[in-house]
Amino acid sequence: MAGASTPDLTAIVSNAGGLGAFPAGTISPEAIHQGVAEVRKRTSKPFSVNLFILGRTQPDAKQVSRALELLAPIREELGLPPGQPLEKYAPDNDAQFQAVLEEAPAVASFTFGILTKAQVDALKSRGILVMGTATTVAEAKAWEAVGADLVCAQGSEAGAHRGTFLKDFESSLVGTMALVPQMVDAVRIPVIAAGGIMDGRGIAAALMLGASGAQMGTAFLSSPESGIPAAWRDAILGAKDDSTRVSRIYSGRYARGIVNEFMRKLTPAVDEIPPYPVQNALTTPIRQAAGKAGRGEYLSLWAGQAASMSRGLPAAELFAALIEETRAALQRASADEPPSGERSATRGA
Amino acid sequence: MAGASTPDLTAIVSNAGGLGAFPAGTISPEAIHQGVAEVRKRTSKPFSVNLFILGRTQPDAKQVSRALELLAPIREELGLPPGQPLEKYAPDNDAQFQAVLEEAPAVASFTFGILTKAQVDALKSRGILVMGTATTVAEAKAWEAVGADLVCAQGSEAGAHRGTFLKDFESSLVGTMALVPQMVDAVRIPVIAAGGIMDGRGIAAALMLGASGAQMGTAFLSSPESGIPAAWRDAILGAKDDSTRVSRIYSGRYARGIVNEFMRKLTPAVDEIPPYPVQNALTTPIRQAAGKAGRGEYLSLWAGQAASMSRGLPAAELFAALIEETRAALQRASADEPPSGERSATRGA
Repeated sequence: MAGASTPDLTAIVSNAGGLGAFPAGTISPEAIHQGVAEVRKRTSKPFSVNLFILGRTQPDAKQVSRALELLAPIREELGLPPGQPLEKYAPDNDAQFQAVLEEAPAVASFTFGILTKAQVDALKSRGILVMGTATTVAEAKAWEAVGADLVCAQGSEAGAHRGTFLKDFESSLVGTMALVPQMVDAVRIPVIAAGGIMDGRGIAAALMLGASGAQMGTAFLSSPESGIPAAWRDAILGAKDDSTRVSRIYSGRYARGIVNEFMRKLTPAVDEIPPYPVQNALTTPIRQAAGKAGRGEYLSLWAGQAASMSRGLPAAELFAALIEETRAALQRASADEPPSGERSATRGA
Repeated sequence: MAGASTPDLTAIVSNAGGLGAFPAGTISPEAIHQGVAEVRKRTSKPFSVNLFILGRTQPDAKQVSRALELLAPIREELGLPPGQPLEKYAPDNDAQFQAVLEEAPAVASFTFGILTKAQVDALKSRGILVMGTATTVAEAKAWEAVGADLVCAQGSEAGAHRGTFLKDFESSLVGTMALVPQMVDAVRIPVIAAGGIMDGRGIAAALMLGASGAQMGTAFLSSPESGIPAAWRDAILGAKDDSTRVSRIYSGRYARGIVNEFMRKLTPAVDEIPPYPVQNALTTPIRQAAGKAGRGEYLSLWAGQAASMSRGLPAAELFAALIEETRAALQRASADEPPSGERSATRGA
């Protein structure tokens, strides 16, 4: 939800009884302090702060200049001046971590990599619950081994960036239905299911699979409080199940979004694209300009595979509906006849 | 399950109260008649017959000779004589359809394409229920439009061949958790969920999503009655969630299997591989020889993303366990407290 949420949305979800998440992956330590303060003005309930875990990338000058060349026609079309190499491609990751430590939210969640045991211990010593993001069972075990309190199982349906950090991205695109029960069986810490969950049916299904909760991103993107450009919201509300793809063209890291002109134009050159955070920084001015100009074809239209189920409701209304639907689904389960096979099996035995 | 099931397995599942499936996609009309007769010797319960829907492929002589060249070192290693172009690459699809019509099983299911309304009507006029396979909502709507009685939602987790027939395979790799509720909302016919379902938790989850049933393939592959080579069974029992990939290298059509030497060796040449059924026919002798020789590295190790949950149980025992687990999961749901957010929401409101 980095770049797609607001302190307001975080607080609304927490006030409604969920665990609102404040995305801090792409912002400076100062902005983390400010953002968390804004959330705290709006809620006294627990919330989480999410950070990316980045290795140190030394940008390759040649690759940067080639990327700028590839992006030049789009910059021009949007009326932006020619792009230049940057001094800095991402906020200092250690300083971001320090800011989260100091703010001590109820939960700190992480993606793109894994913390050291010392980092996890530092968070825990401040009373912060640590949640890692895992796209495979091996990644979940790694998080458990460094002492994480919870792990988010990010199924392949999920919108935006893949959390994959151990193996190639393609083998790690495991669907939620397959990923959750395998992870639940492999670790002792609670598993939170993510990916393709948009309503109470999905939450109930996640609970059936053994998850202790559900994490939802796309479902809240279309709410008026999410702060995404109108063109992105329109794309989500018009999406179909087969509208998205996973691509590293926007940021240098694999992420799921709605296929658009930007993806189609740059995909043939995907092998020349610099890694995250370099490409992400180089495309940020394009996304900002495209958002202002209402040009969805040059935005990164992050969305999960069930985006078509988006409702555009205010977040508090959506949250209340989710709870009601989940309860209804679980109650229906108890009222239902046993699965039909059971009766036949009895007859057939 | 083509090439991976037996009349015995089909009948066991039907006798246990499920709908056993007899895979007829790769066999001759005569073999369909014989196979169905074998199933009928073993059960008087309803079962289904599954067929592929193939367009007419005119094999390209140059492409065939290049494919034979690529496969030559593997044939040699397995002690097979040099490969030759074939007279026929697949059984006559119309004659297969005719055989299914004549046998009139309770259900005929189809994948890889779509029937005409006239074909669906012909099946229905013999009292056969028609089930189409859909990997996207658009495909499900297409099946409903030609009069199908049921549609199988094949999520991206599923093992073996993708049923995709309308759009590119990658956009059509929709996870079960995302696919099922969108399909349930889009069509009026019952949706059967497939992909990543290996135990009662998965079946209960599918029902929560609105599915009317679950279709399972991989779960039964490791049963002693499945008839797959021991090396394939061993690979399934040793699989992890991130062991599989989708590739068209074995058959010319995208299918999910456990990554092995064959996939690694031939993937660099994937763009030169002929389409299904040509590549499938050319690799069949390799798979047969590899199976006999216990060489899993040259088999197509079809498996879904939850293959690690395979139990190797006899099919009847597995089926009974699935029913018991599903009932337990659904009963747990009713006994559970409402999701924790609900209570907090009440407090917070």
